[in-house]
Amino acid sequence: MLSLVDLRRRIEAGTLTPEGAIRLSQEAILARDPVVRATVVTDPAPAVTDAGPLAGIAVGVKDIIDTAAMPTQMGSPIYEGWQPKTDAPIVMRLKALGAVVLAKTTTSPFASVDPTETTNPHDPGHTPGGSSAGSAAAVGAGMLPLALGTQTGGSVIRPASFCGCAAIKPSFRLLPTVGVKTFSWALDTLGLFGAGVGDVAHALALIAARPAIDLGGTPPGTPRVMVVTQDFAEAPAPEAKSALDRARQAAERAGALVRDFALPPEFAAAFESHGTIQDFEARQALAWEYAHHRDALSPRLGPQLDAAQGLDAAAYDDARRKAHRARRLLKTLFSDFDAILTYSAPGFAPRTLASTGDARFNRLWTLMGVPCVNVPVPGDGLPVGVQVIARFGGDGRALAVAAMIEGALER
Amino acid sequence: MLSLVDLRRRIEAGTLTPEGAIRLSQEAILARDPVVRATVVTDPAPAVTDAGPLAGIAVGVKDIIDTAAMPTQMGSPIYEGWQPKTDAPIVMRLKALGAVVLAKTTTSPFASVDPTETTNPHDPGHTPGGSSAGSAAAVGAGMLPLALGTQTGGSVIRPASFCGCAAIKPSFRLLPTVGVKTFSWALDTLGLFGAGVGDVAHALALIAARPAIDLGGTPPGTPRVMVVTQDFAEAPAPEAKSALDRARQAAERAGALVRDFALPPEFAAAFESHGTIQDFEARQALAWEYAHHRDALSPRLGPQLDAAQGLDAAAYDDARRKAHRARRLLKTLFSDFDAILTYSAPGFAPRTLASTGDARFNRLWTLMGVPCVNVPVPGDGLPVGVQVIARFGGDGRALAVAAMIEGALER
Repeated sequence: MLSLVDLRRRIEAGTLTPEGAIRLSQEAILARDPVVRATVVTDPAPAVTDAGPLAGIAVGVKDIIDTAAMPTQMGSPIYEGWQPKTDAPIVMRLKALGAVVLAKTTTSPFASVDPTETTNPHDPGHTPGGSSAGSAAAVGAGMLPLALGTQTGGSVIRPASFCGCAAIKPSFRLLPTVGVKTFSWALDTLGLFGAGVGDVAHALALIAARPAIDLGGTPPGTPRVMVVTQDFAEAPAPEAKSALDRARQAAERAGALVRDFALPPEFAAAFESHGTIQDFEARQALAWEYAHHRDALSPRLGPQLDAAQGLDAAAYDDARRKAHRARRLLKTLFSDFDAILTYSAPGFAPRTLASTGDARFNRLWTLMGVPCVNVPVPGDGLPVGVQVIARFGGDGRALAVAAMIEGALER
Repeated sequence: MLSLVDLRRRIEAGTLTPEGAIRLSQEAILARDPVVRATVVTDPAPAVTDAGPLAGIAVGVKDIIDTAAMPTQMGSPIYEGWQPKTDAPIVMRLKALGAVVLAKTTTSPFASVDPTETTNPHDPGHTPGGSSAGSAAAVGAGMLPLALGTQTGGSVIRPASFCGCAAIKPSFRLLPTVGVKTFSWALDTLGLFGAGVGDVAHALALIAARPAIDLGGTPPGTPRVMVVTQDFAEAPAPEAKSALDRARQAAERAGALVRDFALPPEFAAAFESHGTIQDFEARQALAWEYAHHRDALSPRLGPQLDAAQGLDAAAYDDARRKAHRARRLLKTLFSDFDAILTYSAPGFAPRTLASTGDARFNRLWTLMGVPCVNVPVPGDGLPVGVQVIARFGGDGRALAVAAMIEGALER
């Protein structure tokens, strides 16, 4: 993989130019993308600047995020050739930092659950996950050092786990979703993919203009880490359990205080309410597409929106109350510990291109709005990761604990 | 003014057709709009349906809200002729209810503070307020029975007060802001203008699919109403004080328990933090416009965004914490009373077209996310209104108390 921190170190040392760094991505795309199929369109002649802390960093932008110089096609034939007027604020921010938007990356239609043509960079017979399929696969394949995704259920953390890269779904609205196609306004969250935890930490600190997020992996004293198995979701596959065990042992080796923790029943209730909130909002957010292009909606999204027409406001309001209660309780719980360690995904990427896998270990945390980091866990076979979670606003803490575990896993 | 409830009553009684009702708006636009200048574009041949609870209702849509059949020009030359691909969800919802989008209405550029060419329907030498200038003026002039606005500071309640119509800024995100140009995502709120409180209550109940919002003006037992003067803002003009006194007496006559209430200091702190939150987000939301079209920004917005470039994330995070504290405190306070009664605006619409007036009595409540209703207070001279506020989610309660005051004022 291309490490953002490593590329920037070489550029600052004068051993690599920004142009040279962009060329590494261009060459990797030429070599890998014919099989991985992570990009929708690439900029054939990108304008590379020498200025800015992300100069020389090629970025992939999920194709539900508006770009003024490239079409934004939402993974859907309904938006074929659609050219937005403006760059989304997150794209403007990347450019202001010197980064190059080199590619739009594939997305499930409207960031829903239907698969794209993208293949897993570790085995083309397996899904890369979704909905941020192209961004996860492009980073996992070593084509790009940084890519933007979005998560409404598990669309950042799950594909990162499947593709073997690090990722962060930051605190809700830390990054602006303006100019990003809405699926569910209470859930949609921009996230970042990178080679390692240090790479996404460095990128997030710069993009969010909050230097404290980037601790360079320094462990925060003796962090108290709770291992959570989310028993309200179906049990995971053995490889996910094994990865969680290894991550737990790594955390202990690195000096963390690790305990098991069973989430109170309020969290099962919130977990169950995720779909109602998501689908009630998606019905509104995609009302135009549904009314005018129902037949062009993808095979799972169409019926999902059909069913959503029957949801009523009372069910939605009840679901929101359950989410609110769990959020308040989680805030209290986080006064007793620093981070939660749990599954990123139910197991390896499924051996199919007809599904993007299951988001059941991610949904609750998206609904809670808390920062979640995927840490790849080295092992045999396909990649699998674990998820480190901190309190709302504790993005730096989540990243620091994640970096601590990542470091101990490598040893 | 054209009352939505009255038009619907006549349509249901068979004494008016939906076509006839739309024609009333078309004729009123022809008669009044040459002076009021509230519309940007009108649909010359609207498709009128007989079906739906808002059939026959002509709606004005603020020109920062996406429409697929009419341009959306944001009140700015930067978006001259810009044609969005889709209708915003709120527009889709109005159409699904049978309403006709008859006009796009004028807006301050990007819903900021610079004035439009719209004049006050009660005196063309006075501002109609802003930023939802056209929507407030069109309803106040009797051109339309319903119009959509947005409020980030005081862009719904203030122009309603200036133009003599009722309006509601509902609870934050009760109505979806998808497809609405963002200024500040933590503040931007869709609102409705109508002839009277019963009209906006009926419309909101239908649009939000929450029938309980529309109580038909039934007073909720003996409501406890607190009169709040917002002393952290500069004092209002005599006519605003007089209107508040008359509304207070009307509430008492109608059987409410009315007391004075001084807001604790946390609210002054939140009031002061509004601008930081708004401008830090506006800088991001309008990053593309600022970077590529700084010279085409309007006279106040340009310098506002210049200054916003200097805001840092720490100031923003601190402002959000202050807002959060005040929101939690307000929730507690609302367990002791039902509604707050306060100023809608500092006084009559200023005698100028070079300013949209002052939002200082509105900003705090937008930041709190609570429902706010403007009740016109009959009197001599230009219109002036008062503001009725309830707890978050208490849109029906705010409307019921507002209707109670409105009814007693008329007697």
